[in-house]
Amino acid sequence: MNASPDRAPLRVGIAGLGTVGAGTFKLLAGNADQLRARCGREIVVTAVSARDQSKDRGIDIDGIQWCDDALSLAKLDSVDVVAELIGGSDGIAKSLAETAIANGKHVVTANKALLAHHGATLARAAEAAGVSLAYEAAVAGGIPIVKAMREGLAGNRISRVYGILNGTCNYILSAMRESGREFEDVLAEAQSLGYAEADPAFDIDGVDAAHKLAILTSLAFGCEVQFDAVHVEGIRSVSPLDIRFAEELGYRIKLLGIAGRTDHGIEQRVHPCMVPISAPIAHIEDVFNAVVADGDYVDTTMYEGRGAGEGPTSSAVVADLTDIARGRSVPTFAIPAADLAPLEAAPMSSHVGSYYVRFMVVDRPGVFAEIAGALRDHSVSMEAILQHGRDPGEAVPVVLTTHETDEASMTATLTAIQKSEAVVETPMLIRIEAL
Amino acid sequence: MNASPDRAPLRVGIAGLGTVGAGTFKLLAGNADQLRARCGREIVVTAVSARDQSKDRGIDIDGIQWCDDALSLAKLDSVDVVAELIGGSDGIAKSLAETAIANGKHVVTANKALLAHHGATLARAAEAAGVSLAYEAAVAGGIPIVKAMREGLAGNRISRVYGILNGTCNYILSAMRESGREFEDVLAEAQSLGYAEADPAFDIDGVDAAHKLAILTSLAFGCEVQFDAVHVEGIRSVSPLDIRFAEELGYRIKLLGIAGRTDHGIEQRVHPCMVPISAPIAHIEDVFNAVVADGDYVDTTMYEGRGAGEGPTSSAVVADLTDIARGRSVPTFAIPAADLAPLEAAPMSSHVGSYYVRFMVVDRPGVFAEIAGALRDHSVSMEAILQHGRDPGEAVPVVLTTHETDEASMTATLTAIQKSEAVVETPMLIRIEAL
Repeated sequence: MNASPDRAPLRVGIAGLGTVGAGTFKLLAGNADQLRARCGREIVVTAVSARDQSKDRGIDIDGIQWCDDALSLAKLDSVDVVAELIGGSDGIAKSLAETAIANGKHVVTANKALLAHHGATLARAAEAAGVSLAYEAAVAGGIPIVKAMREGLAGNRISRVYGILNGTCNYILSAMRESGREFEDVLAEAQSLGYAEADPAFDIDGVDAAHKLAILTSLAFGCEVQFDAVHVEGIRSVSPLDIRFAEELGYRIKLLGIAGRTDHGIEQRVHPCMVPISAPIAHIEDVFNAVVADGDYVDTTMYEGRGAGEGPTSSAVVADLTDIARGRSVPTFAIPAADLAPLEAAPMSSHVGSYYVRFMVVDRPGVFAEIAGALRDHSVSMEAILQHGRDPGEAVPVVLTTHETDEASMTATLTAIQKSEAVVETPMLIRIEAL
Repeated sequence: MNASPDRAPLRVGIAGLGTVGAGTFKLLAGNADQLRARCGREIVVTAVSARDQSKDRGIDIDGIQWCDDALSLAKLDSVDVVAELIGGSDGIAKSLAETAIANGKHVVTANKALLAHHGATLARAAEAAGVSLAYEAAVAGGIPIVKAMREGLAGNRISRVYGILNGTCNYILSAMRESGREFEDVLAEAQSLGYAEADPAFDIDGVDAAHKLAILTSLAFGCEVQFDAVHVEGIRSVSPLDIRFAEELGYRIKLLGIAGRTDHGIEQRVHPCMVPISAPIAHIEDVFNAVVADGDYVDTTMYEGRGAGEGPTSSAVVADLTDIARGRSVPTFAIPAADLAPLEAAPMSSHVGSYYVRFMVVDRPGVFAEIAGALRDHSVSMEAILQHGRDPGEAVPVVLTTHETDEASMTATLTAIQKSEAVVETPMLIRIEAL
């Protein structure tokens, strides 16, 4: 419907011609005939902006308006939609989105940092201006999870949404498990393969996953995006030893982003998790992403695919352009931005779950009793404790798993145990997830 | 946007108050506040129709208009959308959809048979009348796969779409593998658990999966739905013996529906497949469904969830109602129905793939030579052949796997081998899929 081929083309200005910008350009050209059939009109690039006009990006920008200044692109009469593919939570990306909205242009972005920090504000501006703010590419790359959450599962109350949201971390954890190698070693390999940045902190410290989780939380629970409320831990401290213990206990270690309703509010957390080997998400390996949403009617649904890269991210950008070309729009975060409530954040100390803890202890009589005593004193119920081999007088790993308890009790227990002279390193704590 | 709470409610007439109809009623009531927030208007049920007005369905239909005749519901001024939840490819369901469209009502349906047989015709009628024909619930239950194909992956050329599309078959195959029991045995159990119908033919002979596949094919390739072109085989002939051989060879047996572009046209086939244990879809067990779509930019994406049942199916029906309430519509099969091309169907004889074949042969010298000779005569390249144990003079299973060959050569080979006096049963052929 609305498919008259005579409708005016949708005119797109692409700001940023890196991997995603150039990829989007290629997709729009390569699949132009199909897009015209599907949208009932053409989607054409009328303007582009980047730092260096002369750089060879494998695309032909002859005859397309060049803007040295991205902000000027957002003001062009010949642009209906600004594709913000520059990146960064503030600076030019934010100014560009604001300028585009102020000039009545739709905005399509792949920028998770921008949305995580300014999502609610930008959504309010866009909805007040009657334009779309679309960001399918900002979460889990090619996987159409924003559409699934906002439209496909619209009838459901979501109780929990979680996923493998960073391909770099998943690649590293997969490779560590398969090869038994150390984190630093595998990170260096990932960098040489282009799966990790030269400065990898953003990925491996969990910040990127937290940006995406904050967006999913808003979509799932009808609240403002609140990145600061995400509890974030990365994967630097995960060791081959923990990976081996995990396997022995029937788990795999994954960096998950998890948002859920609790008795204390909405919890948002990104950290390494022990997930049961029987859970489908345990089998998502390498650079793949996956998102699981639990709804009251639909039950559990899972979405899997590539979370980054030129093709998948461009696919998501073009999905948003297709929606706009078809004249479709929905509220940015599923409900009108004006109705988004502040997030009632549950403190991490109120988190309830099971725990894996590995201690390095001096192998001497009485250590188990000290550990058991600390657990008892804080009412933490132990599920299992194991020590392989013996090495009297030397440091050996002791692993314990607990039944469900709250994070505050667990933290207090660890503080008590660390006071023991027998404990020679900071204990390694990994939360066990019931999925 | 468009979210003024003053907008008139969307008025729904539900025809059919079975599991899905009653479930949709419950969801619309139970999550009414959330739906109002998301749609900017209420979704209200104004009329219902079913066989027996007095039956207790756990829903309160007091004050809602009752129609003994579903067709009269489709003509009511008080109805904007008809939810056709009666079922069946023809008869009342078809008349109802036609009547609703003719009266300017949107149609939402969970009816895969109706779409598989009359999809293109109904889509043309709906688009000519300017109303939506929405059917998220018709394919893979709660999984929002129609939306993903039609919108989320809109920028991609799809090369292949496939999936586990029937939960009953997947449950039976999972249970056979886990328990080692025979098909008939497990089917009886599935019937007692409510996972299989008293007359199970529709599910276990692959017809239900073929209906869904025909719809996915149209969405993926922009062609008319053509159910008659689907090659269909069910799971009755799968034996515990084949399941064990599959495991030994590194495969699991799944009933897949597969549609793909080939050199000979679009092939559509539903049959038991050997899938590598490393493929994610091999791990979809029990009643779960999964759909995989391969696109030229997005690469491989997978969608998993419950494919049937009250909650998941109602979730999908309400997703469609939400789209309509939000004023969103897209062409029924991704491109305008007027532009849908007839399907260029590839004949099954031109299918190219690898094969597993199990023969029951009399254990005597020379049998392998006969089999090998037949393969050579038809230029079929053998990958492996195996016979476990010996039982001179008695029938024993011999399994062979082939490299890629075409179906016509494979069929001719089997015909030749069956002429051997040593072969005592019809050989069991299962296609091996490279996923």
